[in-house]
Amino acid sequence: MTRLAVLISGTGTNLQAIIDASASGQLDAEVALVISSRPDAAGLQRAAAAGIQTVSLSRAVYIEPWAADQLIAEQVSAAGCDYIALAGYMRKIGPELVEAFPQRVINLHPALLPAFKGAQAIAEAYAYGVKVTGVTVHFVDAQYDTGPIIAQRAIAVPEGQGLEQLTERIHAVEHQLYPEVLQLLSQGRVEVIGKNVHIH
Amino acid sequence: MTRLAVLISGTGTNLQAIIDASASGQLDAEVALVISSRPDAAGLQRAAAAGIQTVSLSRAVYIEPWAADQLIAEQVSAAGCDYIALAGYMRKIGPELVEAFPQRVINLHPALLPAFKGAQAIAEAYAYGVKVTGVTVHFVDAQYDTGPIIAQRAIAVPEGQGLEQLTERIHAVEHQLYPEVLQLLSQGRVEVIGKNVHIH
Repeated sequence: MTRLAVLISGTGTNLQAIIDASASGQLDAEVALVISSRPDAAGLQRAAAAGIQTVSLSRAVYIEPWAADQLIAEQVSAAGCDYIALAGYMRKIGPELVEAFPQRVINLHPALLPAFKGAQAIAEAYAYGVKVTGVTVHFVDAQYDTGPIIAQRAIAVPEGQGLEQLTERIHAVEHQLYPEVLQLLSQGRVEVIGKNVHIH
Repeated sequence: MTRLAVLISGTGTNLQAIIDASASGQLDAEVALVISSRPDAAGLQRAAAAGIQTVSLSRAVYIEPWAADQLIAEQVSAAGCDYIALAGYMRKIGPELVEAFPQRVINLHPALLPAFKGAQAIAEAYAYGVKVTGVTVHFVDAQYDTGPIIAQRAIAVPEGQGLEQLTERIHAVEHQLYPEVLQLLSQGRVEVIGKNVHIH
């Protein structure tokens, strides 16, 4: 069975969605490892509650840029994980980690890439006044938000909808889409040809 | 009744969609003027067939950047047009023309702005490998593709779909969306507050 490492920094709601999809059988993969960039991330408790091995990195590890990534690479390898799924992990990962796991690092982004890259995507799209935004799941490449897109889902921004409500709707779509994409990967149905991803 | 000037350069399929929507009563506005950047644009025949006044600009007019825009501004004013709708007009219009008709110049773009600006939007989005693209109708500002967004519609890119088929589907959505937005404008239901457009 496909083994997943999930990287988090906060509440871990997407981690929970993946755990739930795995438990229900919707996702034929198991979360074998959860790594948090913060020792106080609430998502660590979700992992513990599900009996998943956790690793919590201290701030000190991030002082040297490649040190955290090296620790992550070692832990992921030791746990025999096939994929690294970023799920609200608020630290940048370096090109060395990406290159150590080619086409094995996946990210979820709360906008329709290549629009609204970066950490404030929802608020920036809202302020821009877009009428359609969405969610992207993509491979992480050395430039981060520019990796091959595996799946996207559009979300309309209705007249009068506030940022908070839009944010909730985007998260709801994330919680559906991320497990779906991880299932495609687990089933070996995802092929990357150049910049394009094909689903078989 | 709201009077529209439509600017074209080619076959004028969006012009035709606007003419048809006006004829059927879906759009309470009339195309009072069609201006083409090319004397041989097939869209001019569509305009003539519908009994619409046409102006065709020669290449020589475009040698001096502001000369064409000045002619356009004069013609639009003389025809008493309320809005200038760009519909496959392949020349850039200058900030002077935009400033002469504030919030009166509308453009249709075959992508979900701010992604894939520029003249090759469909092909660039396709080559990027996006799984969702779409159509945007927006006010033209001095920076062109960055003006306030009035409406957007998403279009999924299904596995195996070629560029040609995607292009056709995008054009089909354009032909629906552009008349709908022109109707909102004709009804006075569009309000711009800063960067955001509200539909009442």
